[in-house]
Amino acid sequence: MRGQPGRSVTGRALALLAAFTPASPALTLTELARRAGLPLPTAHRRAAELLAWGALERGDDGRYRIGLRLWEVGSLAPRGLGLREVALPVMEDLYEVTHENVQLAVRQDLEVVFVERIAGRHAVPVLTRVGGRFALHATGVGLVLLAHAPAQVQERVLAAPLRRYTDLTVTDAGRLRRCLADVRRTGYAVSDRQVTMDALSVAAPIRAPEGVVAAISLVVAHDRADPVALVPLVRAAGRVLSRALG
Amino acid sequence: MRGQPGRSVTGRALALLAAFTPASPALTLTELARRAGLPLPTAHRRAAELLAWGALERGDDGRYRIGLRLWEVGSLAPRGLGLREVALPVMEDLYEVTHENVQLAVRQDLEVVFVERIAGRHAVPVLTRVGGRFALHATGVGLVLLAHAPAQVQERVLAAPLRRYTDLTVTDAGRLRRCLADVRRTGYAVSDRQVTMDALSVAAPIRAPEGVVAAISLVVAHDRADPVALVPLVRAAGRVLSRALG
Repeated sequence: MRGQPGRSVTGRALALLAAFTPASPALTLTELARRAGLPLPTAHRRAAELLAWGALERGDDGRYRIGLRLWEVGSLAPRGLGLREVALPVMEDLYEVTHENVQLAVRQDLEVVFVERIAGRHAVPVLTRVGGRFALHATGVGLVLLAHAPAQVQERVLAAPLRRYTDLTVTDAGRLRRCLADVRRTGYAVSDRQVTMDALSVAAPIRAPEGVVAAISLVVAHDRADPVALVPLVRAAGRVLSRALG
Repeated sequence: MRGQPGRSVTGRALALLAAFTPASPALTLTELARRAGLPLPTAHRRAAELLAWGALERGDDGRYRIGLRLWEVGSLAPRGLGLREVALPVMEDLYEVTHENVQLAVRQDLEVVFVERIAGRHAVPVLTRVGGRFALHATGVGLVLLAHAPAQVQERVLAAPLRRYTDLTVTDAGRLRRCLADVRRTGYAVSDRQVTMDALSVAAPIRAPEGVVAAISLVVAHDRADPVALVPLVRAAGRVLSRALG
């Protein structure tokens, strides 16, 4: 252990878990070891412990995958499935009324994490997946979460280069700052073709006693969208969920 | 470490995660240490590592909770959200047609784990939650998963006492064995008031190349249920999902 300063045993086990990504959900032991930065025998020992507990599983192809038991424990995260359980009935209402994409997201550091999504099959395709991440400054939910984030989080985002997804993405720090002030004042955010040129999203905050903990949005095709009609629906959903968490 | 034979460092970190349950999603350090069977200083060190990584989070109340990052990693489990992503559109179809409870489950050892559920708000209340567990021998999805489980799994369930949830729960091993043969022969399972006296469920298998990997069901009020009408719907959903995984 002393040969690897700064990496505890727990840290090495967690590094194995962190090796899995949405693009690489199944890994050989060699890939696991390389991604976790561990010697093969160490990776093998730690992986065996994680397998025995159910945090990893091995398929017929011999590759490792995240195990159902880790998913079960993860489902106890209040900001994961806990939030989702509260929000899903309201999201279903929004879906039944609009048949558009409904999304639920929280902030983790400088990114949005999508916790739930109801995808309208005839609605505009969206880039997100449940458990996936996205930048804060472009999506509707991201703008809501950024507008209500602690000042030092906002400053870190505003100080870094703002990635341009489309010609309409706001990448100027001063303009983004004014946009966030608008979001706080009006109680909603509109991201109009700032992520893809075919989509528009309207988002509203979900408040708990400790502040804004999540955001809910509708994502619709830009060319058939009427934000004026969507705003009251999304804000009402946000208020209902805020009351449920209050 | 030698003072605690059989418990590796990784094992102790995992024991901290396993301390959280649906009934106890928030724990003090003292509770964590007691449930994990660890001395307080050890629990504190391991919890600090898990906090730093994001596997745990601490609220304003000082209590520990499962962190969003663990939920994110867990969402990569093929049998968790991966399966759910494939199944949700079909489950939404079943819901739109019936407005009843739609459930998706997998087997983990001798239990059912519910991976997804769409709850009809005007439908019969169900006992399950996403990430929750249940015995195999009573629910529709459990009967399907048990009927297609390896022989040694079936024998272990049949050899143990079968818990009686209602007067209609099948608790006789011989009768359950015949029931499982019927499920394999007909391609579906009906659990009629075997979990609660107001509900009936109809379930069908979801097959992948390696065998039956999941089950889908409708859970409806017993007194307005017509299993004959539900069976084709549920079996069709199972077949569509089997093709999607094939």
